[in-house]
Amino acid sequence: MKPTACRALASAAALVLSVCAAHADEKSVGKGMAWTIMEDLTVETGQRLAGSPEEAAAREWAVTRLKALGFQNVKNEPFTIRGYVRGHDSAWLTAPYPHKLAITALGYSGTTPEGGVSGDVVYFPTLDAIKAAPAASLTGKIAFIDHAMKANQDGSGYGPYGNVRRQGPGIAAAKGAIGVVIRSIGTDNHRNPHTGAISWPAGVSAIPAGAVSNPDADIIARVARSGKLMRLSLTLTGRTQENMPSGNVIADLPGRDPSLPMIIVACHLDSWDLGMGVIDDGAGCAIVTAAALKVQEGGKPLRTIRVLWAGAEELGGLGGQAYAKAHAKEPHALAMESDFGADRVWNVKFTRLAPQVAESIKTALNPLGIVPNAGAADGGADVDAIIKAQKLAVIDLAQDGTRYFDLHHTPDDTLDKVDPAQLQQNVDAWTAVLKIVATEGGALIAP
Amino acid sequence: MKPTACRALASAAALVLSVCAAHADEKSVGKGMAWTIMEDLTVETGQRLAGSPEEAAAREWAVTRLKALGFQNVKNEPFTIRGYVRGHDSAWLTAPYPHKLAITALGYSGTTPEGGVSGDVVYFPTLDAIKAAPAASLTGKIAFIDHAMKANQDGSGYGPYGNVRRQGPGIAAAKGAIGVVIRSIGTDNHRNPHTGAISWPAGVSAIPAGAVSNPDADIIARVARSGKLMRLSLTLTGRTQENMPSGNVIADLPGRDPSLPMIIVACHLDSWDLGMGVIDDGAGCAIVTAAALKVQEGGKPLRTIRVLWAGAEELGGLGGQAYAKAHAKEPHALAMESDFGADRVWNVKFTRLAPQVAESIKTALNPLGIVPNAGAADGGADVDAIIKAQKLAVIDLAQDGTRYFDLHHTPDDTLDKVDPAQLQQNVDAWTAVLKIVATEGGALIAP
Repeated sequence: MKPTACRALASAAALVLSVCAAHADEKSVGKGMAWTIMEDLTVETGQRLAGSPEEAAAREWAVTRLKALGFQNVKNEPFTIRGYVRGHDSAWLTAPYPHKLAITALGYSGTTPEGGVSGDVVYFPTLDAIKAAPAASLTGKIAFIDHAMKANQDGSGYGPYGNVRRQGPGIAAAKGAIGVVIRSIGTDNHRNPHTGAISWPAGVSAIPAGAVSNPDADIIARVARSGKLMRLSLTLTGRTQENMPSGNVIADLPGRDPSLPMIIVACHLDSWDLGMGVIDDGAGCAIVTAAALKVQEGGKPLRTIRVLWAGAEELGGLGGQAYAKAHAKEPHALAMESDFGADRVWNVKFTRLAPQVAESIKTALNPLGIVPNAGAADGGADVDAIIKAQKLAVIDLAQDGTRYFDLHHTPDDTLDKVDPAQLQQNVDAWTAVLKIVATEGGALIAP
Repeated sequence: MKPTACRALASAAALVLSVCAAHADEKSVGKGMAWTIMEDLTVETGQRLAGSPEEAAAREWAVTRLKALGFQNVKNEPFTIRGYVRGHDSAWLTAPYPHKLAITALGYSGTTPEGGVSGDVVYFPTLDAIKAAPAASLTGKIAFIDHAMKANQDGSGYGPYGNVRRQGPGIAAAKGAIGVVIRSIGTDNHRNPHTGAISWPAGVSAIPAGAVSNPDADIIARVARSGKLMRLSLTLTGRTQENMPSGNVIADLPGRDPSLPMIIVACHLDSWDLGMGVIDDGAGCAIVTAAALKVQEGGKPLRTIRVLWAGAEELGGLGGQAYAKAHAKEPHALAMESDFGADRVWNVKFTRLAPQVAESIKTALNPLGIVPNAGAADGGADVDAIIKAQKLAVIDLAQDGTRYFDLHHTPDDTLDKVDPAQLQQNVDAWTAVLKIVATEGGALIAP
């Protein structure tokens, strides 16, 4: 396209987008119950790192609020976890040029002395590149692992690129590195690093491991291309701690027929500590809770709907595992989870759902702009264990993830990032689905 | 517009914008001299806080690079300043809810003990509100000053809203406050605070003064609306220091007729320390320097063009004042400055410029999409003193400032924010103007 044509079209395009944004604002004047739950939770509890006193306070908050909203059997169900306690995080590129880097420790990072550790940097453009490095080749060095994750609507890049964070530190440690820094697993270009948990392999001792923001990683990549020797000074004083308190909060809307296996709808209450835990996952808790209540507005549902606000999801779905163990004897029929931000639902997937129920759901969701997707529904980390244990039917209401990894696990996970109109579309979609499944007296699980 | 129509149009709009963005990327494959100067300066010197060793190193870098580029009479001209040395900056809202806030000390902030200061927060929605507060009413308190600065193309909001930062701390201190926090003077919604200098009034002792990011200010504003008591803990350990070294770098492209008063084109070399000083003002130095060299490609100009990379602009245009004093006896004809980012030039203004020269410039700029603006040109902080001292002609090539206050004085002032196509449009505009004024043998200053 010619620049002049581009300019004219871009102006028209910008106008359309601004009109549409204004439209969304108008719609949001009455922000509704989901917004209220999300705002109150995240403002009144702040960050809710798994195992922290703030997560515990948030459980108390949740119990109080869910009771006030009319839920029954509201319970705080404690369990203990291996957690991570943040210390001071800082990093400097000290050679060839001085740059203070925006860094965060990753969850379960090793601990540096207060004065930090320093080393020459070995640059790896990909996870495969560090995998291919010879054994012991990183002895005394700090590894830097780059990658090229891009935004996409279904968030599927998080699987492969997320491995840079999950596996990269263990690979570096096994080859002798004294520290490891990765490009954040994120798609924004702000000076905010993305945290998240590491999976250390058995037999490998944790080393200090952090993520720098994308603009900081760009500096490192530029200098790497110059071939000049890079040195990094890394201070990450946090530590891993055993036997920290976490817990789930559960709350029921009892059905008219207690003999029917229940429906469980989940989110997670814990968050990473850099932001406010709004899109991850205060919004999810708000969506599932507001939708369940909306269903009950039309009268008591046939089946019980249980809401699970899980703890310690961010450290490996620990709340979901605790739930499945504690509630193994209660019959469940169907599980759903909301844990992918607050942008609009654009497709629906089913696993083991009775076909006639799936057809009703497809019809109900079509006016909301939601189309069927042929892939399998997998629920999510908070319901994964109970799904597997009881072979449940699963429905995924897949949200638009284009912006999700701009914000996920960063300081930027704050209220202003939520579009009230899209949040409400989520509630509408969840309400439509829950109405159908909670009034279905026949089998929900396909034979 | 109906939501469905909006969705369809928005999709089309997004496609146009992405095609145009791709087009801009293609154009930038050969990024040109301005990009190279900007990239090398900001990667190889990093932040360049006025008075710091990094600013001094950047002057050395500038001298070396300007000589290598073929400039004559390249000089590092030192002067001393009252500077600000950053310490540790942190803040917590401790009541009614715990939130760690993203804060930066403002330049010339007072100093807290290492353990910080704590106090009840008094919320002021505007600068006028704190002006109206009774004398001594803030004794022992921490003042929070909010405001509603919005993005606009000409950046004119920075005048009135910038006063929240420049004057707000002095007003709070005069009324007995032990600390002051402001909403950042910025238009983004990222967790990056904006720094900048304070003007303490005579007779008022500095108190600790910081700015929080917009999302953090949103939290404070929400809690203020609830009427609950807020307490803040504030740690800002930086300090003001006298007699710090700064300096200007000047470099000439000598003209064929040394008897003609010269043209001075300026930018500033110093930056705030949170980012890399790219849009403020590495880009400006790159633009004026690349354009001057481009003019000389066509042969030695008639008039001398002097490039001024000023020091300590961020602390009140100190380099510009030092330049005017040091070069008072050299005759100048015309001054221009680039210090408003790297987005496209959209209008041109003149002050005291000979009318026939202005007409030639308007004609030359029209194909670049640049229109005349009836307002007066004022140059900028780095040329203001010499303009006033010698009553110079001035031309402003006004850049699009819509995005500028998203980035200005923040950690986010990094290379990735510059659009190479818009940077090049700046160089093209500057080249067109400099060609005309540097070949004009008649008076540049209107009689």
